[in-house]
Amino acid sequence: MPYARITLHKGKSESYLRALADGLFQAMHESFETPATDRFQVIHQVEPGELIYDRDYLGGPRSQDFVHIAITVGRPRDAQTKQRFYQHAVTLLAQNTGIDPEDVMIVVHTTASEDWSFGGGRQGITAAQVLS
Amino acid sequence: MPYARITLHKGKSESYLRALADGLFQAMHESFETPATDRFQVIHQVEPGELIYDRDYLGGPRSQDFVHIAITVGRPRDAQTKQRFYQHAVTLLAQNTGIDPEDVMIVVHTTASEDWSFGGGRQGITAAQVLS
Amino acid sequence: MPYARITLHKGKSESYLRALADGLFQAMHESFETPATDRFQVIHQVEPGELIYDRDYLGGPRSQDFVHIAITVGRPRDAQTKQRFYQHAVTLLAQNTGIDPEDVMIVVHTTASEDWSFGGGRQGITAAQVLS
Repeated sequence: MPYARITLHKGKSESYLRALADGLFQAMHESFETPATDRFQVIHQVEPGELIYDRDYLGGPRSQDFVHIAITVGRPRDAQTKQRFYQHAVTLLAQNTGIDPEDVMIVVHTTASEDWSFGGGRQGITAAQVLS
Repeated sequence: MPYARITLHKGKSESYLRALADGLFQAMHESFETPATDRFQVIHQVEPGELIYDRDYLGGPRSQDFVHIAITVGRPRDAQTKQRFYQHAVTLLAQNTGIDPEDVMIVVHTTASEDWSFGGGRQGITAAQVLS
Repeated sequence: MPYARITLHKGKSESYLRALADGLFQAMHESFETPATDRFQVIHQVEPGELIYDRDYLGGPRSQDFVHIAITVGRPRDAQTKQRFYQHAVTLLAQNTGIDPEDVMIVVHTTASEDWSFGGGRQGITAAQVLS
């Protein structure tokens, strides 16, 4: 039950954006225990001057291709799972779009199942839904 | 002390957007213990391709009208309060705008009072403010 | 390891936006224990009607210059540190841009170090990175 907010500079093609979003989702499904159709992503394309980032802090050098990914999840994952996910995500994003792994920043926010309503005003995931 | 970030596709009228924001706030006030003037909302209208979502995961079918609502609150609410709020929100949104409840997704983020400064660099809610 | 999302109405100059972002970062570095080059900021400029806020709730009166700042940090700070940061931030923002402190709202979200990958798929801050 995650959603992701992906922020990057305007100027990329539709197919690049889609490949980026696809790669991120594939990594979440394969390495972050995200169900195969649990996909909610927002792409926020910004103008020059609207995305400010240090070129070298704890990574880099970062380029104009820098992508900031904020993910909100519905239950905790352990540190090892997160580490595997980060590695898998940058690998898939590089394969899909050619982006340099140093240009990919990921931050995870954690909430609880009861904090989510996917639709219809229903709360979280019911047992029936998990079983179905 | 919540704020909400409402994300949907571009193309809706100003009155639709306002009715959406009004309905959400009314539900927060009536079912989520939000004070009558504690209102802070951002509407993020996106282009086709910038909002990616599964049509059927734990709800749906979702349409082009899909709205993603992320709410950040300043203290915890219990699961029952959240459940009532989700139900009330989709009911009011449907009344106000005609949106299908299956097109409304809500996620709640929780912080503490000390994490907020509403203005002037003052922290949280002081006792004087609550009493006044 | 914070990132900030700064939301305000369109219409400000590039130099105003930069002075706003600079003032916020300076306050974070000087009063919020943020390293000197740990800077990641997104500016979200919105159209009229996309930013809805009460003019007087726990502050104000708020004007069209209202700025909403959401900060995500990688470890907790105590309440006093937050209070000092809020005060320092509105002071620097007023100096840099002339903005009324009552027009500045700040909300802090807290995560853990393991929730961050700054680049290359590496997790958090390693001991080597802190020492280097």
